Amino acid sequence: MILLGVDPGCRFAGFGVIRKEGTLVQLLDHGCLRMSPSKPLSERIALFHDFFQTKIITLHVTHLALETPFLGKNAQNFLKLGYLRGVLYLLAHKHNLNLYEFSPREVKQAVTGFGGASKDQVARIILQLFPRIGSVETEDVSDALAVTLCGLWKEKSIEQLRR
Amino acid sequence: MILLGVDPGCRFAGFGVIRKEGTLVQLLDHGCLRMSPSKPLSERIALFHDFFQTKIITLHVTHLALETPFLGKNAQNFLKLGYLRGVLYLLAHKHNLNLYEFSPREVKQAVTGFGGASKDQVARIILQLFPRIGSVETEDVSDALAVTLCGLWKEKSIEQLRR
Repeated sequence: MILLGVDPGCRFAGFGVIRKEGTLVQLLDHGCLRMSPSKPLSERIALFHDFFQTKIITLHVTHLALETPFLGKNAQNFLKLGYLRGVLYLLAHKHNLNLYEFSPREVKQAVTGFGGASKDQVARIILQLFPRIGSVETEDVSDALAVTLCGLWKEKSIEQLRR
Repeated sequence: MILLGVDPGCRFAGFGVIRKEGTLVQLLDHGCLRMSPSKPLSERIALFHDFFQTKIITLHVTHLALETPFLGKNAQNFLKLGYLRGVLYLLAHKHNLNLYEFSPREVKQAVTGFGGASKDQVARIILQLFPRIGSVETEDVSDALAVTLCGLWKEKSIEQLRR
């Protein structure tokens, strides 16, 4: 099982890729795709598509984990998030990925044990679990790694149910 | 100039394709892509992508016209519209299409001469302009044909400005 978790955004898109084989869990890749806001939106969407398509192919991704979006104060940001999620759905279908979606509350609950945890609390636990990523990067990738972990634990509990 | 106009939706997606060569204007294709709501969303998004990619390639489309979305009562529908628009942005970039976007008011104004026109008024004018499409189909394709025409007229006024 190779799981890609993405925290999409039109300027910064954090991601993490985790492989699980038996009891072995390994962080294969993580980072943040940065897209200049001076580029046209259609170009950024194409960049986003090509970047994650390459990750899926080269890292042999089998599962995709996303957080369900909620409508905040800015409807335009919500719509732009929709553009990127549409691209991820397209990639999930094209590359035959299993898709997991979790509410922000589920992700926080899974990672910190508390559904109302703050962004900082999530980031601190992510840094404890993956000290390699370094605190500078944590901000950009912690949400993506949190949702990736959530997908990993979900799969684990499905496996346990099957036994 | 070959212009594709799309009125995206996760169940019905109306479209029109119009060619303009000098003073000659021809309706090349029109219709409605129907997607069963029983299919998973990612499959419908992939269907939508493949359908319009085929149209763009086979009809040698050069321009894409869309209506700007507005947040209605249902945030989930708005988000789903975002998924499909993301796919259209991706196709526009991949196939090097010129992208036009118009507000619903601009489209109604261009077609009926009145920005506050009803859906029915728009449909009646579309049927007068394209009697071939038949009144049964008008409902599904009239919004798409209205935005296609809007793109056509926009290009015409740009051309006139250049002279």
